[in-house]
Amino acid sequence: MNLIILSGEEAVGNRYRLTDHRAEHIRSVLRSVPGDRVEVGILDGPIGYAAVDSIDDRAVVLCCDELTPVPDPQPTVDLICALPRPQTMKKVLLISAMMGVRRLHFVRANRVEKSYFQSPLIQPQNQRAYLIEGLSQGKHTRLPEVAVHDRFRPFFEDTLPSIISGETELGPPVKLLPDPESDHPLYAAGIHPDGWLLPAIGPEGGWVPFEIELMERSGFARCTLGRWTLRVETAVTAVLSQIELIRMLDDRQT
Amino acid sequence: MNLIILSGEEAVGNRYRLTDHRAEHIRSVLRSVPGDRVEVGILDGPIGYAAVDSIDDRAVVLCCDELTPVPDPQPTVDLICALPRPQTMKKVLLISAMMGVRRLHFVRANRVEKSYFQSPLIQPQNQRAYLIEGLSQGKHTRLPEVAVHDRFRPFFEDTLPSIISGETELGPPVKLLPDPESDHPLYAAGIHPDGWLLPAIGPEGGWVPFEIELMERSGFARCTLGRWTLRVETAVTAVLSQIELIRMLDDRQT
Repeated sequence: MNLIILSGEEAVGNRYRLTDHRAEHIRSVLRSVPGDRVEVGILDGPIGYAAVDSIDDRAVVLCCDELTPVPDPQPTVDLICALPRPQTMKKVLLISAMMGVRRLHFVRANRVEKSYFQSPLIQPQNQRAYLIEGLSQGKHTRLPEVAVHDRFRPFFEDTLPSIISGETELGPPVKLLPDPESDHPLYAAGIHPDGWLLPAIGPEGGWVPFEIELMERSGFARCTLGRWTLRVETAVTAVLSQIELIRMLDDRQT
Repeated sequence: MNLIILSGEEAVGNRYRLTDHRAEHIRSVLRSVPGDRVEVGILDGPIGYAAVDSIDDRAVVLCCDELTPVPDPQPTVDLICALPRPQTMKKVLLISAMMGVRRLHFVRANRVEKSYFQSPLIQPQNQRAYLIEGLSQGKHTRLPEVAVHDRFRPFFEDTLPSIISGETELGPPVKLLPDPESDHPLYAAGIHPDGWLLPAIGPEGGWVPFEIELMERSGFARCTLGRWTLRVETAVTAVLSQIELIRMLDDRQT
């Protein structure tokens, strides 16, 4: 827990009374005593330090006094991911929150098993713990929005164009389709540090040809993440890491 | 299982009789019938296709006839990693094999729990399944060598210099120390597509200052993988993915 994530709803003035695993972390891992400072972030809000006000077996009370607003991460990354098996979905939720994704669109695909849509993880209340854990690990506070789309074609033909036409302030997104068969590296895709990116990660076994054709018609550009065929969660990490590197590369050039 | 990994020792002529999970995969996932071709790789050897010779409940017999040698992946990446908890070590073994790492050096560090050195995973025979699974996922065949070093300072002061001076054909390595505090991106580290790279991934909680100083004196350059504080296995994926991108970037420039 690199950052203790607090929710604004928990606040009484600038005080937070914690009784859950965060309190346990402050007691047992940080071994804090009253007066110590701990790193905190307010969900969808500022980051900074809180002083430990009191600590006992039941609760830890923190007093937040040094908080600084943080800008939203740029580029804006909305990740599209074929709905993976539940164990993998947990990892994708955590990694996406950890690495600054704004929105997660889980979509149906031909190679997605129907049973995955029956998983309790489809419910937002069951996703939250993995997202918060990711924020806490990655040391930032913007909670990703998560949407699950149970039809492939309407998502790419209707939902996504509608989202894009509604986000006029962001400009047109760069739509990325990582594909082991492509040899176009990501840096050639026209990524800008303050742009909007839509990478789409396929299911285990990959997208089927019909899906790739439809996505290409929707403006997705095939690209490679490297020589290896990656697992879903590794591909998510790889594309987000490569975007980080390109962001820094472009910062240098501009 | 993107590639069925066969071991040369299993061969009788160019035939392989499989009775384990690989046979089950060919029967139940690929649903092959005699005459079908499946993608295979010989451990530390060529890659290609095998014909299904016979298939029944007990065994699948493959006949390898179209195999092509594959060059060793370049750049040569030897990954140094503070010995992680066993669950994480499994992921690091798999990811390293999947992403073409040549050697894995697990080292002691201040924030490594002593109990991790008692894990059965320290024994090579218990690492093998994760390495093979990684090769099978990543679709290549070079089995990483794994070494465990139970002292930090002698590794960096004696073992590593001795390894480096013995590898004259590779030239001097680029030693990378990913560190959330650094703002030097990896592309500025002097990585060449046919070079030798030694990235060192710290433990949960990071290296302690003494370790960072000693590694910097040993020629490791601090660099950033991006804005987020990553988990161990995510940092391993991130550094290997960014190396892949830089390799392609340099391919273009040369």
